[in-house]
Amino acid sequence: MIGFFRVRSRQEVVAELQRFSPMGQEEVGLCNGLGRVLSRPVRANEDLPQFLRATMDGFAVQARDTFGASDAQPALLRLVGEVRMGEPACRAIGSSQAVRVATGGMLPEGADAVVMIEHAELLDSETLEVYKSVAPWENVVRPGEDVAAGQEVLPTGWTLRPQDLGLLGALGATRLWVYRKPTIAVFSTGDEVVPIDRQPGPGQVRDVNGVSVCAWVTLEGGTALPMGIIPDRLEQLSKGFAEALQAADALIVSGGSSVGTRDFLTEALQKMEGAQVLAHGLAVRPGKPTLVAEICGKPFLGLPGHPVSALVILHLLGRPLLDRLCGRVYPHRPRPFRARLTRNLASAQGREDYVRVVVEEKQGELWARPLLGSSGLIGNLSRAEGLVKIDPLCEGLYSGEWVEVESFP
Amino acid sequence: MIGFFRVRSRQEVVAELQRFSPMGQEEVGLCNGLGRVLSRPVRANEDLPQFLRATMDGFAVQARDTFGASDAQPALLRLVGEVRMGEPACRAIGSSQAVRVATGGMLPEGADAVVMIEHAELLDSETLEVYKSVAPWENVVRPGEDVAAGQEVLPTGWTLRPQDLGLLGALGATRLWVYRKPTIAVFSTGDEVVPIDRQPGPGQVRDVNGVSVCAWVTLEGGTALPMGIIPDRLEQLSKGFAEALQAADALIVSGGSSVGTRDFLTEALQKMEGAQVLAHGLAVRPGKPTLVAEICGKPFLGLPGHPVSALVILHLLGRPLLDRLCGRVYPHRPRPFRARLTRNLASAQGREDYVRVVVEEKQGELWARPLLGSSGLIGNLSRAEGLVKIDPLCEGLYSGEWVEVESFP
Repeated sequence: MIGFFRVRSRQEVVAELQRFSPMGQEEVGLCNGLGRVLSRPVRANEDLPQFLRATMDGFAVQARDTFGASDAQPALLRLVGEVRMGEPACRAIGSSQAVRVATGGMLPEGADAVVMIEHAELLDSETLEVYKSVAPWENVVRPGEDVAAGQEVLPTGWTLRPQDLGLLGALGATRLWVYRKPTIAVFSTGDEVVPIDRQPGPGQVRDVNGVSVCAWVTLEGGTALPMGIIPDRLEQLSKGFAEALQAADALIVSGGSSVGTRDFLTEALQKMEGAQVLAHGLAVRPGKPTLVAEICGKPFLGLPGHPVSALVILHLLGRPLLDRLCGRVYPHRPRPFRARLTRNLASAQGREDYVRVVVEEKQGELWARPLLGSSGLIGNLSRAEGLVKIDPLCEGLYSGEWVEVESFP
Repeated sequence: MIGFFRVRSRQEVVAELQRFSPMGQEEVGLCNGLGRVLSRPVRANEDLPQFLRATMDGFAVQARDTFGASDAQPALLRLVGEVRMGEPACRAIGSSQAVRVATGGMLPEGADAVVMIEHAELLDSETLEVYKSVAPWENVVRPGEDVAAGQEVLPTGWTLRPQDLGLLGALGATRLWVYRKPTIAVFSTGDEVVPIDRQPGPGQVRDVNGVSVCAWVTLEGGTALPMGIIPDRLEQLSKGFAEALQAADALIVSGGSSVGTRDFLTEALQKMEGAQVLAHGLAVRPGKPTLVAEICGKPFLGLPGHPVSALVILHLLGRPLLDRLCGRVYPHRPRPFRARLTRNLASAQGREDYVRVVVEEKQGELWARPLLGSSGLIGNLSRAEGLVKIDPLCEGLYSGEWVEVESFP
C-alpha cells in the first residue's frame, strides 16, 4: 500500500477551492430563475409602491380632520366618492372630506391617512362619523417606502427563491443576468465497478456513486455529465480526463477501492499539462483518501470510493466547490439544528469525525441516533438525516449531550 | 365590507386537506428520480453485498490462525496469492494460508477475516508475519449484512435524495414507480393587478404572486400552469376555474385586495357543480382571508392577495396540500433551528402569529431580528430567512428569548 501525502485539514482544502471562479453569465427569463444565481446586482428602476397606497380597508382622509375624534365625540366628514381598484384616484379631497378606499387602493390627492372601516360609520350616503383619530401616514404606504428607485434590492451571488422572484416581478425585471450552470463530468473508477443495469459477477459491485454523485450535482445547481466507469488503467484515466476537460467545467471522480487507485489518478493527473495536485489526503473521517487538483484551471475532485465517504466529502468539499463555480455567495442553506445524542461517541484526535445520525423525536425532544458500521454499508444511508461533527480536538461526545446536526446531504 | 365566516385554526384546515389523494403512478428511470416520490415500496431483489467482502486493505485469513498473535509472538502464515478487484476469489485457502486483498475485494473460500495491512509484514514473497489477532468476521461484510434480499429498503411516500438513488442503483433498480407530479393552475385576481411586463398605471401593481406562487409550486414538486390574471368578475372567475379544472389537478388563486373579492370567489365557487367550501377565514396572521375548497374532488386554495401573506399561507397550507397530492409521507424538510429574539414581540391571543425574521450571528449565537411592517411590503421579503410562530395562547415573546425558526419558504 502506498501511503497518503501529508493529510490536510478541511479548512485548508476549502481555502484552496477559493481559487476557482464562477462560470460566465447568461440571461434568463424571470420564470426560469428559480435556484439560479444573480451575476449582477439588481437595482430598482422605480419606486415601490408608485403611489400612496392604502394598507387597510376604510376611508381616505386628511388626518388632521380626525384629531380628537372618539366614540363620544366623533369627527363628522363628508363622503365624496370611492376609489376603484386599479384606477387612478382622480378626485382630490379637501378638508372634512373622505373617499372610500380598499386595501391596496390609491389615495386621492389631499389625503394622507386611512381610517379603518371598523372605526367609522356611514350615517347616510354622504355623512361619515369617525370614532378614532389617525396620524398622518397611518394605514398607508408612501411611494418608495417599500423599495426606493435606485436601491439595490438583491446582490450579486444571491440564489433566487420564490420570494426573490416575486420581488423582481414587482419591479418589472422580466429578464435576469445569472451565472451559467457549471457542467460537471462524473466518473467512477475501479475494476470491480459495473454499470447499474448489469448483474454483478462474483467480486463485482454496481456503480452506486455514478448515480448518487450525478443526482447530488443536480441538487447543487450543476449540470451533471455522466461519463460512466473508467478502469484503473493509467492510459484510460488520462484519456477520460482529457475528454471530460473538453466537455465540462469540472471533474468529479469517485475512486474504486483497489490499492493503488489513487496513485493511478495522481500519476494520470501529473502527466497532464497544466495539472496541479492541491491536496491529497484529508484529516476527516470518513473521507481520508480525497484528492483535489486543478487541471488547466478546472477543478478536479477525487472522492473516496465508499458511497458514504463520497457523499460526506461532497457535503464538505463539493458544496463549497459548487458554490464557487455557481457564483453562490448567499446559498440559503438550511442551518444546523440541535438534538441530543443517544449514545457515547468516541473519536480519535487530530481529525474531524462525521457521524451519520437518524433523528427521532421523544417527548418533544429531538434525539440523534448514530449509525455506526463501515462506511462501505449503504443500506442505512437513506435513514441518515444528518451529520454530527466531532471536532479534531475532541476525544468524543457523551450520551445525552446536545449536538448540532447538519442536514445531509 | 363583508366579514369572514367563522375563522378556523390552521390544524383544522390542515386536517381537511387530508381528504385529497396523490396522483396516479408513472415509471421513471433512476437518473430522473431526484425529488420524486415512491408510489410503491422498493424491496431488495438480492443481497448486498453479494459476497464476503473486505472492508480493509490487508490479508484474508482464517481467523483462528491468528489467535494469540502479538508483536512478540507473531503468527506465521503462507501467502498463496492475491485477490484482484472485480474478479472472483477462485482459490480457496486452507489452514495457515493468506491471500492479499484490498478494501471491497472478495474473500476466497475458507477465509473468514481480514488482517489489516498495518498489522502484518511480509518476510519474503511467501512468508507473512501477523502481529495482531482478528476475530472471525472482523474487517469483512458478510453477504446480506448490508441489505438482505426481500427486505423493504424504501417505503411508499419516500422523497428520493441522492443517497436514496445510490442505494437503488446498488440494487439494480433502474426503473422506479413514482407518483405523477400534480399540475397546479395558478391564477391571480384583482382589478389592480397587471402582468409583470406591463408598466403599471396609477393605482395598478404588477402580478407579484403569479411569479412567486409558480416558483413555489416548482420548488415543492408540482408542475406550475400559469394562467395569468382574472378580473374580479363573477363570470370571468367561473370561466377561469372551469378551464383550469380541465387542465390541472389543483387550483391556487391569489386574491386581489379589493373589498368583496373573496365573495366573488365564493360565489363563483358555489355556482360550480361539485364545489364545496371547506374553510373560509383562518386564525392566522398574516393570512386571515384564506379560502380552501374542493371542486369535483380537486383542491382549491385561495391565498390572500398580499405577497407576504400569500407565501406564509403556502408555507402553512400549501405544503401539506402539495405533500398530499405528491404522495409525500417523508418530505425530508429542514428542521427548525434555534435563535434568540432581538426584541419583544407582542401578539393577540386566539390566533397564530407568524413573524418573518432575519437571522444574524453574533458572538457564536444566532439572533432572529423580526421584520415588522405591513404584509403588503415586499422589499424586505427576500431578507427574511425564517418564520417564528407565536402560539395562539401566547401574548408575546421577550427580547433575548430562544425561539424556533422555520426556514421560509
